[in-house]
Order: sequence, then structure tokens, then C-alpha cells
Amino acid sequence: METNRLEAFSDGVLAIIITIMVLELKVPHNPELGALRPLLPVFLTYVLSFVYIGIYWNNHHHLLRVCERINGGIMWANLHLLFWLSLLPFVTGWMGENHFQALPSALYGTVLLMAAIAYIVLQTLIVAEQGRDSRLAQSLGSDWKGRLSPALYAIAIGVSFVRPWIAGCIYIAVALTWFIPDRRLARVATN
Amino acid sequence: METNRLEAFSDGVLAIIITIMVLELKVPHNPELGALRPLLPVFLTYVLSFVYIGIYWNNHHHLLRVCERINGGIMWANLHLLFWLSLLPFVTGWMGENHFQALPSALYGTVLLMAAIAYIVLQTLIVAEQGRDSRLAQSLGSDWKGRLSPALYAIAIGVSFVRPWIAGCIYIAVALTWFIPDRRLARVATN
Amino acid sequence: METNRLEAFSDGVLAIIITIMVLELKVPHNPELGALRPLLPVFLTYVLSFVYIGIYWNNHHHLLRVCERINGGIMWANLHLLFWLSLLPFVTGWMGENHFQALPSALYGTVLLMAAIAYIVLQTLIVAEQGRDSRLAQSLGSDWKGRLSPALYAIAIGVSFVRPWIAGCIYIAVALTWFIPDRRLARVATN
Amino acid sequence: METNRLEAFSDGVLAIIITIMVLELKVPHNPELGALRPLLPVFLTYVLSFVYIGIYWNNHHHLLRVCERINGGIMWANLHLLFWLSLLPFVTGWMGENHFQALPSALYGTVLLMAAIAYIVLQTLIVAEQGRDSRLAQSLGSDWKGRLSPALYAIAIGVSFVRPWIAGCIYIAVALTWFIPDRRLARVATN
Repeated sequence: METNRLEAFSDGVLAIIITIMVLELKVPHNPELGALRPLLPVFLTYVLSFVYIGIYWNNHHHLLRVCERINGGIMWANLHLLFWLSLLPFVTGWMGENHFQALPSALYGTVLLMAAIAYIVLQTLIVAEQGRDSRLAQSLGSDWKGRLSPALYAIAIGVSFVRPWIAGCIYIAVALTWFIPDRRLARVATN
Repeated sequence: METNRLEAFSDGVLAIIITIMVLELKVPHNPELGALRPLLPVFLTYVLSFVYIGIYWNNHHHLLRVCERINGGIMWANLHLLFWLSLLPFVTGWMGENHFQALPSALYGTVLLMAAIAYIVLQTLIVAEQGRDSRLAQSLGSDWKGRLSPALYAIAIGVSFVRPWIAGCIYIAVALTWFIPDRRLARVATN
Repeated sequence: METNRLEAFSDGVLAIIITIMVLELKVPHNPELGALRPLLPVFLTYVLSFVYIGIYWNNHHHLLRVCERINGGIMWANLHLLFWLSLLPFVTGWMGENHFQALPSALYGTVLLMAAIAYIVLQTLIVAEQGRDSRLAQSLGSDWKGRLSPALYAIAIGVSFVRPWIAGCIYIAVALTWFIPDRRLARVATN
Repeated sequence: METNRLEAFSDGVLAIIITIMVLELKVPHNPELGALRPLLPVFLTYVLSFVYIGIYWNNHHHLLRVCERINGGIMWANLHLLFWLSLLPFVTGWMGENHFQALPSALYGTVLLMAAIAYIVLQTLIVAEQGRDSRLAQSLGSDWKGRLSPALYAIAIGVSFVRPWIAGCIYIAVALTWFIPDRRLARVATN
């Protein structure tokens, strides 16, 4: 009951973010194959960002399922996470339109980094509210993926100014490690 | 309980997709009848895509109502389906603006084909999770519509390069066969 | 339980329609009062359409609260209603940009007329499903407002070609009669 | 049960408002740092408006959690609040694009003022419906923040024409006082 509306609002915002990103794929005015070619990098960036929002939605879903109580701090930490994710359509469009150049690639990584930090803050507040002995706290364990991702985003931001395409590969690699939903939480929730 | 949030998120995404498609109907700057004429093919494509999203929403609704358990694979299969449907506003706009020419018509069919395959994957994963003896597995039976549609989309994609208007007729015909909600599932759910 | 997801999807679509209409209020590029003046008719049309969506949301809410069972026909009748309402942002923008001229005003009335008919169809299907002796059937009674509104829209469409401002007054007048939520259904629901 | 759909619809509208505001951050066409500079004021205004929508969502959430019964008046008061909030993307874009000049800043304050008044009206109607002895009525107490904010917005509107940046500071200051969720209601809800 407590967490229902937080979930509903977050779902609404994530659903809108994931859908308006497609608006950056501007409909071309002629029906030739050549009209689609400039859209290819925009499309590839859209796929990557779609997967990232999907990852956040999945993990958020698992995190809130084991959350029994929320408070004002959790609400704002959740809005803080949604804020950074809401900037994803903008940086997706900028990186896609500029074929993965240095600055757009670094800004894309910055938004991913800030969202990752916001997620850690949210998770920490939720663990604190449920208690350190709660099912959630135990199941999170060492949380190596949650700690490694921000470090990799930070590296990718730096690498963007030297070899933007390596930064792109790092974003894809991190997405792949998260692609598998968080088994720890899934295990707890089904017990 | 388990499937609630999956439904809510999917509803959100489908509601946004169905509504932002209308943004391709750009408001004309003069009040003459002639200003509406170039919008007619865009409008007709909008109607077709609206019906397709309606069909997916209806079938998705029936499918999840008989689904008792979800897992990570089902979540990603669901996001995969939403991904292809999220491209519908783009291909709707492109086909509408270019009066049903070859390439836009073929791309429209490709998105329908990929969405149909994604739906079959989702359905298969859900059946596997519920068990082959579940109500769902029994009620699906031979599922001829689910198997025929992708074949027809594939034919329409090929036909697009010869006679685009025949491809358009195929898209309309397939929509008509799905217009009737899936009685098999409706029957199970009411038992 | 049965009607939950129908409500959720309709809420999503109506929430998006009501919100994207404001996108027709294009942000002017200079900070003068004169920059706002051309937006005034767009703003006034926005207020009118906002009230209309509010009316539909209110009545839809009351209608579904006394609805205990849905079927495939009701689902499609609901989508049909949402289809016409989804065209409201387009006709709102066209009427607003063209200062209530003949054709945009007539098209605005046409969309209202079609939505009103769609609502009557939906209501009829729901009454049929619940049974003629149900609380809903009894409470609807003569339904004079539901019958009068389409007639007035039809008159307004005709009048648009002679005196568009009278058509505008009719749209406002009908909205006022509906502004009060449907007391009959509210009464039933609280009993 | 009664308030569920009112919450769901409001959540939908607020989720869309908070997300479409980011569309005012137009994706620049070149990848230089200079391309981001003109977007800075738009971004800062976006942050401020995001926080305001977050505040309204939080308070709205608390208000409806202690609301046991709704009526037609409450529904329209809620839509009235959503109407003013729906204008926030427009005034956010105008203020952001024009670097906090007089008129955009005053209009921004006007929308905040009208939303604050709409919130007071909604709260008053909800208190009246629940009864003056209800938990809600007692917990609201003197409601100094709810009364002070409109006064400060009114001052900021006047100040906009003399020193727009002071108006900006007032908007930020009021947001900070509301940043902390309404403890009175939170306290009641947990009792």
C-alpha cells in the first residue's frame, strides 16, 4: 500500500522517458533508403538508452518489491533518480546526432554516472529504513555491480575525450552486465 | 500482485505510443480544406496503427490475466515487445508522409513483423513459466492467428517493392482478423 | 479487478491527451507582452478542451465504477472513444491558431460529436453487459444530457459555416451543462 | 478504493508534465561546449520546475492518503490544480529562453501563485468532506507554509518588473521551505 503510488509515479515517468526518446528519430521527408542512413546512429543510441531505462525499471521494480516502508527521504531520492534519467532523452539525441563525438559521449556518461549514484543513494536510504537486518540488506551482499558501474562510467567519461568509440563500448559492456536482472533480490522476493 | 507492475508499465508505454502518434498530424497554419488534404494519408495510417496498438493492448491484457508468475526473462521479453511497438509512431509517420511508397511500407511491415515475433517469444516464455499443463497452454491450442500473421507481414514486406498498396491491404486484413479479441483466453479467464 | 486495467489504460491515455495539448502553446522567443497576444486564442481553446477531457474523465470514472463486468466489445468501444478524444489536441491547435474560423470550428465540433456518440455506444454496451435491471440501467434514467449534447454539436457544426463564434458559444454552453458530474451515477455508487 | 483513480490520473498527468518539460532542452546540432551554453538557463529553470512538481506530487500524495472520501467538487478542484501545473512547462520554457527577464519571470510566478491557490482550494474541499474533526483537519493546524507561499509568489511577481533575479531567488527560497515533505500529514498517516 505504502509504496504503491511511488511505484506508479516512477512507472509513469520511466514509461514516458522510454517513449519520448523515440521522438528524436525525426520522420524523414523522402522515401529513399538514403533518408534513413543519417538516422542510424540516432537509432543505435536509442536502443542503448532503451536498454538502460529497461535495466533501471527492472532493478527499481525488484528494489521496491522488498521495500516495506518509505519516508520523505526515499521519495526525494527517488525523484532525484528520475531527474537524471529524465535527461537521458536529451543526451541520447545529442550523442546520436553527433555520431559519438567527444563531448556528447562524455555528457552521456555523466548522466549515466549521476543516475547510478542516485540509485545507490536511493538503495542506501531504503536499506536504512528497512533496517540493516532486513531481507533487503542481507540479499544485497557486496553489490559489486552497483559499485563497479559508476567507476566504469567515470573511466568512460575520461576516455571520451581520447577515443569516444571506446567510451561507447564501455556503455554497452556495462549495460550487458546489468542485462541479467538482479538475481539476489529476485531470490529474496520469491522466498 | 506479481504481474501488476508489469501491466502498469506496459499500459503506460502503450498509452503514450498510441497518443504521441497523433503528434505526426501537424496542425496546418491555414484554415482551408486544402490544408487538410495532405494530412489524409497520415490520418489513415494513424487509424491503422491505433487499431494495431489496440489489438496488442487487448491481447496483452488477456495474456497477462492468465499469467500467475513472472520472471526476469518475461520482463525482458515484454520490454522487447514494447521496443518494437515504440517504433510504430516513426514508421507510421514515414509511411503516412510518403503516401504508401515502397520502402516506408516495407519498413512498416518489418516493425509489425518484429513486434509479432516479440509477442510470440513473450507468450512462449509465459507458457513455459506457468507450465505446459496450465490453463494458458491448453487454451492457446494451435494459435493459428499468431503463426499466420508474421507470415503475412513477411509477404507484405516483399510485395511492398512491387505493389505497395497490396501491402497496405494485407496490413489492414491482418488487423481485421485480430480485431476480434482472443476468445480462447477470454474463455479461460471467465471460467 | 476486471475493470482495473481498462481504467488504468484510459487514465493513461486521457492524462497524456490533456497534457500534450499544452505543447500547442509554443514558447515564444522574445520576452515581450506582444509575444503572448497571438497565443491567447490557442490558450482559450486549450482551456475549453481541458474542461472537455476533464468532463470525459469524470463521467468515465463514474461509469466504470458501477461496471462490474467487461467484455471484448466494451474494450473496443472504450478504445473507439479514446480514438476520437486523441484527435482533440489536433483540432484544438487548428481552431486556436486560426481564431475560430469556419472549418476548424466545424472540425472541432465533429470530433466532439464523434466522441459523444462513442461515449453513448460505450455506455449502451456496458448497460447491456450488466443487465437492464442493474443499478446502472436504472440510474441512467432518461439520460437527457447524453442525448442533447450530440444534437447541439451537430447544430454547432452547421452554424460554424455562418457564425463560427456562435458555434464556440455552443461548445462552451454544452461544457457548462456537463461541468456538474453525473449525479445519478454518483448517487448510485454511494448507495 | 475511492481515491485510487484520482491518484492514478493525477500521477499520470504529473509524470507527463515533469517529463515533457525536458523537451524544452532542444538537442543542439553541433558537438561543441558552446552549443550547451545557451541551454544553461533553460536547464536551471528545468531543475527548479522539476523540484516544484516534485513538491506538489509529495504533498498531493500525503493529502490524498488521509482522504477517505471524494466528491465531484474535489475531482474538479484536483483538475483545476492540474490545469495550472500543466502550464508550468510553457512558462518554464519562456523564462529559461529569455534569461529570467521581467515578464516571463512574472508569468512564472503567476502560474505558481494560481497553482498554490488551487492547492488550498483542493485541501479546503477535502477537509470539508472528511469533517472538521477529522485527522486531516487537526493535523493541518495553522498551515503557515500553505498561506505564506502565495504571499511570497505575489511579492515575486511585483519584484519581477524591478529586479527579476530577486524574483528568481524568491521562487528558489519558497521551493526550499517546501522541500521537506509535510511532516504534519506524514505524522498522521503513520499513526
